[in-house]
Amino acid sequence: MSVNTVRLAVGVLGVFGWCLTLSSATQVGLSDKVLVFPYETDFSFVALIPQKEMGLRAFTLCMRVATELPEERQIILFAYRTADYDELNVWREQDGRISFYMSGDGTFFHLPSLTTFRTSLCLTWESRTGLTAFWVEGKRSTYQVYKPGHSIRPKGTVLLGQDPDKHLGGLEAVQSFVGEITDLNMWDFVLSRSMIQAWHYGHKVPKGNIFDWGNMEYELNGNVMVVDDD
Amino acid sequence: MSVNTVRLAVGVLGVFGWCLTLSSATQVGLSDKVLVFPYETDFSFVALIPQKEMGLRAFTLCMRVATELPEERQIILFAYRTADYDELNVWREQDGRISFYMSGDGTFFHLPSLTTFRTSLCLTWESRTGLTAFWVEGKRSTYQVYKPGHSIRPKGTVLLGQDPDKHLGGLEAVQSFVGEITDLNMWDFVLSRSMIQAWHYGHKVPKGNIFDWGNMEYELNGNVMVVDDD
Amino acid sequence: MSVNTVRLAVGVLGVFGWCLTLSSATQVGLSDKVLVFPYETDFSFVALIPQKEMGLRAFTLCMRVATELPEERQIILFAYRTADYDELNVWREQDGRISFYMSGDGTFFHLPSLTTFRTSLCLTWESRTGLTAFWVEGKRSTYQVYKPGHSIRPKGTVLLGQDPDKHLGGLEAVQSFVGEITDLNMWDFVLSRSMIQAWHYGHKVPKGNIFDWGNMEYELNGNVMVVDDD
Repeated sequence: MSVNTVRLAVGVLGVFGWCLTLSSATQVGLSDKVLVFPYETDFSFVALIPQKEMGLRAFTLCMRVATELPEERQIILFAYRTADYDELNVWREQDGRISFYMSGDGTFFHLPSLTTFRTSLCLTWESRTGLTAFWVEGKRSTYQVYKPGHSIRPKGTVLLGQDPDKHLGGLEAVQSFVGEITDLNMWDFVLSRSMIQAWHYGHKVPKGNIFDWGNMEYELNGNVMVVDDD
Repeated sequence: MSVNTVRLAVGVLGVFGWCLTLSSATQVGLSDKVLVFPYETDFSFVALIPQKEMGLRAFTLCMRVATELPEERQIILFAYRTADYDELNVWREQDGRISFYMSGDGTFFHLPSLTTFRTSLCLTWESRTGLTAFWVEGKRSTYQVYKPGHSIRPKGTVLLGQDPDKHLGGLEAVQSFVGEITDLNMWDFVLSRSMIQAWHYGHKVPKGNIFDWGNMEYELNGNVMVVDDD
Repeated sequence: MSVNTVRLAVGVLGVFGWCLTLSSATQVGLSDKVLVFPYETDFSFVALIPQKEMGLRAFTLCMRVATELPEERQIILFAYRTADYDELNVWREQDGRISFYMSGDGTFFHLPSLTTFRTSLCLTWESRTGLTAFWVEGKRSTYQVYKPGHSIRPKGTVLLGQDPDKHLGGLEAVQSFVGEITDLNMWDFVLSRSMIQAWHYGHKVPKGNIFDWGNMEYELNGNVMVVDDD
C-alpha cells in the first residue's frame, strides 16, 4: 500500500469571477490508484484538468465510488462549473436519489444506494433527444428526457470532493464527499450499452477523450490521499 | 458430526493486573472445525495463543462468523487486551455497525448485517498511513484513516466470545458472542486484495503467522463446542 | 399442466385419542409433481405415510416451499403428531422466524423470508449433541443446540397443510398452508453439507428412507391440487 506524497505548491484557479486557491501542483496519471477523501471538510478537493474543452452536446461520465455517508446526507459526486453556472453536477440528494443538474433545475433518479463497497456509476446524456440515463454496475436506469437542445459551456473547472458554490468559491463541509473515487473517465459522446458494460467489468474500452484515469491531470487540495487500489 | 471432548484443567491467565481463571487445557489445531457458542453466557470463551508476540504496526485479521443475535444487540467479535488497554477489539455495535478499537475511541463501518449464514470478514490496518478497511465476502469497504502511527502492544490475551473488561476480568453476558466462528487467521501485515479474495474463496493463501486456524493453540472455557464444519 | 383426479373415499385416521376424518384414498408417487394449496381452509391437507416408523434420534427433512402469505401470518410447514405430542412441527411464525418444535417449547431461526419463489429448505437435528440447523438454498444457518438426548416417538401422523391440534383433530384456517410444496424428502440421519447441497441443486442423492417424493404414499384431503412441476 503506497501513498503518494503530495508535492505542495500554491496556485490560483480563476474562472472568470470565480476563484479557488489551490495548494497543490499538477500531477499526472492515476492508474491503479484511488482517491480517498477520509474526512468531512470544506477544503479538501481534487481539481481535474480535462484533455479537451468541455463544450459538450453529449457525454458519458463513469466512475467507481464508495461512501459511508448516511443516506440523509447530500453529497457532491462531480462538479463542473463555469463562472455563472453549475454546468454538470452530479449529487446524491438528501432523499437518497441521484441527481444530475445542468444550469438550473435537475433531474432525479431512484438508484440502488451508494454503499461502503464500490458502485460502478455512469451517466449518459445527449442534447439532440435529451435522453439521460444512469448506469449502475452496467445496468441502465429508465431513460429520462432532460434538457434536449442544451449545450454545456467550455472553460470551466471540474472538482471532486466539493461543490464550488455560487458564492465565489465558497465550499460547504455538509455537501463534501467522504469516501473513495476511482477510475473516473469521460467521453464527449454516448457509449453503447456493451461499452459501458465492458468498462464496468474492467475490460478494455476506448480511453476517455475528456478524462482518462490512467492519464489524468489533477491537483490535490487539502486532505485527499492517493492510494494504491487494493 | 463429531464434538470434541474438552479436557478440563485449571489455570490462571494473568496479564499484568488483569486476570481470567481458565478451566481448560490448551489444545491445538482447528482444521475443518467450527467454534459454536450456543448460549448467551458471561463465562464461555476461547482464549487463542498467538504464534508470535502481537506488537503490531500492521495486520490482517480474517474469520468466518455467523450469528442470529438481533441487530440491536452489541456483540464482541474479537478481543485482544493487555493489562491496561483494549489493544484490538472488533464489535458489532448496537446500531448494527461494525467497529474497530485500538486503545480508546474506535472507528465505525456500515457493512451488510451479520446473519445466520456465514459472513467472511477481514480487517486490515497499517500504522504508517492509518488506512483501515473491512472486507466482506472479499469486497473491501471504503477506507477510513484510523490512528496512523499507532502501535499495538505485545504480551496480551486474545479472547473469542467475551470482552475481557477493564474490571479485572469482568465478563458481561449482554456483550457475549452467540453463534459460530471458524477459519480465523491473522497476519502481521496487510494482505493484498487478491490474497483476501483467495482466502474468502477457500483457496490456498500464506498461513497466518499470528494465528493459523489449522494450527491454532486454544483453550476452551465454559460452554463452547468444537464441531465438525458441516 | 395435469391435475390428478382425487379418488374419493372415507376413512378414519385414529392415533390414540386423536382422530381425523380422511376423504381420500391413498396414492403413491409424486415425481415431478407439486402440491398446490390454493386457498386458506380448515379442511385441506395431505397426509404422508412414512416408509418406516418415525421413532427418531436424528433426521434430515427437506422440501421446496413457496407461499405468498403475508409475513405476519403463522403458517404450518410440516406437522408430525402422536396422540399427546406435537412430535416434529415446523412453522413460519407470525414474526417471520422459522421454528422447530418437538414435544413442547420450540427453537427459532432468523432465515430469509419465504416468498412467491421456491425456497429450498432443510432441517437437520441430532439427539446426541442437540445440534440443529436449517439449510436455505444449501446454506446452513447457525447451529442451535435443541433438546439433546430427546427421542421422537413413532406411530404418529404426518400432515402437510394443517396443524392437527391438541383439540381432537381441530384444524385452524389461520394456521393453514397456502402455496406450493414439492420434493419433500426425509432421512433418519443427518445428511452431510455436500449431500444437502446436491439435493438443493437437484443432483442425485440417497433416496429419503422415511419419505421419498418419487415414491411418496399420500392421501389428499379437501382442496389440494397435484400439479405437474412446470
